[in-house]
Amino acid sequence: QGILERLDAGEIVIGDGGFVFALEKRGYVKAGPWTPEATVEHPEAVRQLHREFLRAGSNVLQTFTFYASEDKLENRGNYVAEKISCQKVNEAACDIAREVANEGDALVAGGVSQTPSYLSCKDKTEVKAAFRKQLEVFMKKNVDFLIAEYFEHVEEAVWAVEVLKESGKPVAATMCIGPEGDMHGVSPGQCAVQLVKAGASIIGVNCHFDPETSLETVKLMKEGLQAAKLKAHLMSQPLAFHTPDCGKQGFIDLPEFPFGLEPRIVTRWDIQKYARKAYELGVRFIGGCCGFEPYHIRAICEELAPERGFLPEASEKHGSWGDNLSMHTKPWVRARARKEYWENLKPASGRPYCPSMSKPDGWGVTKGARELMQQKEATTEQQLRELFQKQKI
Amino acid sequence: QGILERLDAGEIVIGDGGFVFALEKRGYVKAGPWTPEATVEHPEAVRQLHREFLRAGSNVLQTFTFYASEDKLENRGNYVAEKISCQKVNEAACDIAREVANEGDALVAGGVSQTPSYLSCKDKTEVKAAFRKQLEVFMKKNVDFLIAEYFEHVEEAVWAVEVLKESGKPVAATMCIGPEGDMHGVSPGQCAVQLVKAGASIIGVNCHFDPETSLETVKLMKEGLQAAKLKAHLMSQPLAFHTPDCGKQGFIDLPEFPFGLEPRIVTRWDIQKYARKAYELGVRFIGGCCGFEPYHIRAICEELAPERGFLPEASEKHGSWGDNLSMHTKPWVRARARKEYWENLKPASGRPYCPSMSKPDGWGVTKGARELMQQKEATTEQQLRELFQKQKI
Amino acid sequence: QGILERLDAGEIVIGDGGFVFALEKRGYVKAGPWTPEATVEHPEAVRQLHREFLRAGSNVLQTFTFYASEDKLENRGNYVAEKISCQKVNEAACDIAREVANEGDALVAGGVSQTPSYLSCKDKTEVKAAFRKQLEVFMKKNVDFLIAEYFEHVEEAVWAVEVLKESGKPVAATMCIGPEGDMHGVSPGQCAVQLVKAGASIIGVNCHFDPETSLETVKLMKEGLQAAKLKAHLMSQPLAFHTPDCGKQGFIDLPEFPFGLEPRIVTRWDIQKYARKAYELGVRFIGGCCGFEPYHIRAICEELAPERGFLPEASEKHGSWGDNLSMHTKPWVRARARKEYWENLKPASGRPYCPSMSKPDGWGVTKGARELMQQKEATTEQQLRELFQKQKI
Amino acid sequence: QGILERLDAGEIVIGDGGFVFALEKRGYVKAGPWTPEATVEHPEAVRQLHREFLRAGSNVLQTFTFYASEDKLENRGNYVAEKISCQKVNEAACDIAREVANEGDALVAGGVSQTPSYLSCKDKTEVKAAFRKQLEVFMKKNVDFLIAEYFEHVEEAVWAVEVLKESGKPVAATMCIGPEGDMHGVSPGQCAVQLVKAGASIIGVNCHFDPETSLETVKLMKEGLQAAKLKAHLMSQPLAFHTPDCGKQGFIDLPEFPFGLEPRIVTRWDIQKYARKAYELGVRFIGGCCGFEPYHIRAICEELAPERGFLPEASEKHGSWGDNLSMHTKPWVRARARKEYWENLKPASGRPYCPSMSKPDGWGVTKGARELMQQKEATTEQQLRELFQKQKI
Repeated sequence: QGILERLDAGEIVIGDGGFVFALEKRGYVKAGPWTPEATVEHPEAVRQLHREFLRAGSNVLQTFTFYASEDKLENRGNYVAEKISCQKVNEAACDIAREVANEGDALVAGGVSQTPSYLSCKDKTEVKAAFRKQLEVFMKKNVDFLIAEYFEHVEEAVWAVEVLKESGKPVAATMCIGPEGDMHGVSPGQCAVQLVKAGASIIGVNCHFDPETSLETVKLMKEGLQAAKLKAHLMSQPLAFHTPDCGKQGFIDLPEFPFGLEPRIVTRWDIQKYARKAYELGVRFIGGCCGFEPYHIRAICEELAPERGFLPEASEKHGSWGDNLSMHTKPWVRARARKEYWENLKPASGRPYCPSMSKPDGWGVTKGARELMQQKEATTEQQLRELFQKQKI
Repeated sequence: QGILERLDAGEIVIGDGGFVFALEKRGYVKAGPWTPEATVEHPEAVRQLHREFLRAGSNVLQTFTFYASEDKLENRGNYVAEKISCQKVNEAACDIAREVANEGDALVAGGVSQTPSYLSCKDKTEVKAAFRKQLEVFMKKNVDFLIAEYFEHVEEAVWAVEVLKESGKPVAATMCIGPEGDMHGVSPGQCAVQLVKAGASIIGVNCHFDPETSLETVKLMKEGLQAAKLKAHLMSQPLAFHTPDCGKQGFIDLPEFPFGLEPRIVTRWDIQKYARKAYELGVRFIGGCCGFEPYHIRAICEELAPERGFLPEASEKHGSWGDNLSMHTKPWVRARARKEYWENLKPASGRPYCPSMSKPDGWGVTKGARELMQQKEATTEQQLRELFQKQKI
Repeated sequence: QGILERLDAGEIVIGDGGFVFALEKRGYVKAGPWTPEATVEHPEAVRQLHREFLRAGSNVLQTFTFYASEDKLENRGNYVAEKISCQKVNEAACDIAREVANEGDALVAGGVSQTPSYLSCKDKTEVKAAFRKQLEVFMKKNVDFLIAEYFEHVEEAVWAVEVLKESGKPVAATMCIGPEGDMHGVSPGQCAVQLVKAGASIIGVNCHFDPETSLETVKLMKEGLQAAKLKAHLMSQPLAFHTPDCGKQGFIDLPEFPFGLEPRIVTRWDIQKYARKAYELGVRFIGGCCGFEPYHIRAICEELAPERGFLPEASEKHGSWGDNLSMHTKPWVRARARKEYWENLKPASGRPYCPSMSKPDGWGVTKGARELMQQKEATTEQQLRELFQKQKI
Repeated sequence: QGILERLDAGEIVIGDGGFVFALEKRGYVKAGPWTPEATVEHPEAVRQLHREFLRAGSNVLQTFTFYASEDKLENRGNYVAEKISCQKVNEAACDIAREVANEGDALVAGGVSQTPSYLSCKDKTEVKAAFRKQLEVFMKKNVDFLIAEYFEHVEEAVWAVEVLKESGKPVAATMCIGPEGDMHGVSPGQCAVQLVKAGASIIGVNCHFDPETSLETVKLMKEGLQAAKLKAHLMSQPLAFHTPDCGKQGFIDLPEFPFGLEPRIVTRWDIQKYARKAYELGVRFIGGCCGFEPYHIRAICEELAPERGFLPEASEKHGSWGDNLSMHTKPWVRARARKEYWENLKPASGRPYCPSMSKPDGWGVTKGARELMQQKEATTEQQLRELFQKQKI
């Protein structure tokens, strides 16, 4: 059954987790460029991560094609040991995802994300051409559906959806925005409306913000659609990092990004809360993004097992709410084998010399830049950046 | 070249990281029992983790035989889907480690750890028999050397070393103790002396405490050996969790163990400090235990690259001190591409409702228990536990 | 010169600090009732606190008549050792304030605050009668002007202003609200408009929130007046406690209120930031409320000394930005004798087992109560409380 | 009854709190010099603080003669507006203390503290002369007993005790040291022995460390006396600041000293724990030092009321364990009117951008300085400071 059949039937569909962060820690992706040449260089590593997510309960395997547009790969090409063509990276990603999907009953989703072409103010035709190039591979490899994800500007996201819709396949679209909206100041509600009008059947958010903040944004999207009398399925794939202190542009502006985020990593219990809250909000495509490891995806499935009626394979190796501690030799560890314990634990950081929140860097939070943005004198990030450099904002 | 040849020549030998925690997150190991039946059930997952450590720079691959003694596997047998024999688990572990070791030039170390037999007061003969059973597999599979690790009581560690020495292969021995010494109150210095006298060529600590605390313990071991005019190579394989608030029995008594430790995970920069400090202390076998992921091992290698003259393979995907951020589009992210930045960062937890330290649970910290221990009226953990239950300490 | 002459001339007028909290710590006021019978019982203690504020730079001494309406004193009468009449308390307060004011050149302001009569739904006539009773004393003792302060409902504040205006003296009015507005949901901007229309010449906020939050509220009040084309002087007298985690009803709902607020106490440097920010916002009557000690008031004066051209008397015993440390015997303490040091210090709590934020208690944050309030089915706090008890919200 | 009669009879004697910190906040003492010329300049302020402590339950009023030796006053003379003679400061201090003591039944204790003469290596005769000068005033004014307090070097403390003993009055002696001992490396146990041998009838610690740490030090002193078969009454007057992160030299080296200590201020409940613990340790002269306000002294008396059979006067304005909240209008505030609530509260700082611990400044924690000290090449702080400057430690 296809993605829309499942969602239309009221099923809960579980997404997968974050590839670039997980594979960076495993040694196969470079932070900074974040490009997915590992599909060609180390297919076994990519395959294994897909397998872990499948085992953890993912119903959708996204091809590892994040930042795999030709302009991005070229832009960051100097990082890639031997030049690998955009086509090869995308094809390998499809083959690996399909191979693992076939080991279970998961769907394969081809994914595109925001492009350097857009950020450097290339025109619509050129930006769309970049998406189309990836789409050709997805069609050749016959993925099950398509996802446009990680867009900071709804304008570019709409262009992506328009291209992906040419395929005739179902299209999902998620933006990496928070409750304040996209980088041009378009509200989440308006973003949702534009994406649905462009043809997306599933809309929501991914990346940049923690689960709680992301669900706030999805809520605003849902309200926007309701106000416009539009319908779509809702989707959320947030960070697995706590980011209550983020500014408008999300975790990238936090001083800890990307090499000091460890103390922010969410627990499996945080994820169970997220899954419950997402479900209650009406989100039915529930997954994760950067920081989500297989055990986080499993936690979504375990939380929603009562609704779904089954557990994922990986729960063979996991007791519900820590009940596998009930045979521990120490009585005080046995005492942790219960829901109330983990639900109420306020985990310590072991870092008494560190604060609990940070002030985000960047013009995103400076007064001058915010005013410029509001006045719409600067309509693109690029222009803002130029102003930034001129004015030393 | 064997482990002792390398160490005698003054080489720095890099260990690997923690298997049970990493594979628990990936979905293949159950927290609580922590047994390694995945070597038979999911060899591809174990193999992949070995590969990542090899790629990150490990010179030693430890067979995934933690808690793989027969008594332990039986004790926890109810968790294993289909009963898998102790021998099969150990053999598979050896085969996988050797297969991956041959992809590089790493050594394979067969490992034994503390047994339920000892804790339940079985006699020396019985406990030694458990180690000998595992040793037979290691000899058949011809591992390069042996490690007795994760011992809370030096008495049992000495028995393990004595058994392993029967093989004629080099033996390393590490205890999971802190500066206060073993569970019977034997000081780190005395533990070191007993282990060396029993035949260990390499001694040190693993698990239970963070890098900083573990190095304090190794320092005490070193001083104990010096005072006794004994010689041995030093080894450290600490947790990758910050545990400044631990009691004598380490992180197991922390309320966050084992499912809420995320905010304590150390960064790669914390590890670089650890590697430098370990080196300065004279430790030449430097690795990690629970929580150590491949990128942590890579960080040891990167810190010591000036001394060793080379970087590990995985550094292809990692710039030194974040220099891969130097091309980021945002100027304030580019500003993070330098050593001073990451070295001085005090990473926030994003958890303002959580404390920074916890009080450990357990009789380990109650007055009554500590006094009993000091009075030596109760000489084994088992006896203490009984007293605990009788007296409701 | 009177208060309005000073403000009209563009002068900065410095208020005083909090009496009930300071005198509670000194042993003369009971937390809970918070009534000011100390004016009769221990005049020397009240006099000394007034003197300290005068010496610290206060230009206005408020009579210690907080919660000194007859209904309040009766309501809490059981706490007062021997029954002391409302009139006596108020008269003594006036006498003491005047006596100390005459030692410098400060103005005396008679103050009224919210009444139990209003909260228990007495009608306008009855509530106004309570204010009028206090006003009679203020007229007899000829205070210089009047302040209606600490009102959670603008309706009652308006009634108070109307009564005080009968005197012909200038009237200031401050509410203990945050940016979300009063307890009936009236916005800060609307509150300001109603207060000015009722006759207040000076409006603003006091108590319940920290300096930063309070200035946000004053900003909203200012914008409300501008939109309504009304004019008034602005005033702020916030808490000297950090309360970023407050709900709508302020610090009373924080679990630390009132006996565990110590870690939240602001430093003198926090106050200098507040004074500067208040000044930049256009606030010209700048003081403090609960938690403000004399040294906090002095800090306001020191920050604004460049604008005002003079320092308060108490600055004889205080160097600017710690410069009195420049002769310390320890070089690292001498290094603290500079502005940059104190401005950038992030002071540690010394409390590693405590969090940095709390969740507020109360129906203020429960879903049921908030919805009731929005539906306006319950229009008074009293009604909400009844609903609370019936429904166990 | 005199101090020794009371203590010998098994009474608990309550000390007073800290004058220099309290009066600094009230505007009468300058941080840095910390000298007590306020006894002459503003006797009413000093008198009021004495009264508050008396009312809070102090049985001993210490003359406000801290740092009032002639050499100190001269050394810091430039801070004193008009030169006031050492004799006048000390005499006024005695007169004020006696006046207030007579309002109740408190004893007056004349106090001396460490001198600049000692630190600059003046000889024994000269240092003793400074103490003798103050003692002359104490004799003339006929104080009830004498306290030598705030000594970092036991050698100087012994000299002080020897001088004070010349008077024939009982002598108490407290050092501002932690468990690591005095600045020359003499252990607390040894310090205690030397002080008792010199003639002190009461010994203990004051200042520099928090209650918990201070009691650890007193415990070591007690053990030292027991080992030497000596007897003395025990006394503790710690800081009212949490300082778990202090180095050997106490809170002066913390980056927050002296103008950013607010988040470290202890609550009344912390003090109740301290009082109980001090009592259990056998301390019978229990008071406080810097940071102790009248309500902290009251908390000692309230905790020990069951043992003593009475409450202090100021408890008229204080309910036990918050019971005065039991009539609050908000049910969730009423719920705070109980011991369990306040005993278990972990108060939040409201400062999410601040850490919970600091690293102390100073050579106290540098390796070079510590080694020098251990090698005893530098036997005085002065010498260390010189080395510090030469070697840029």
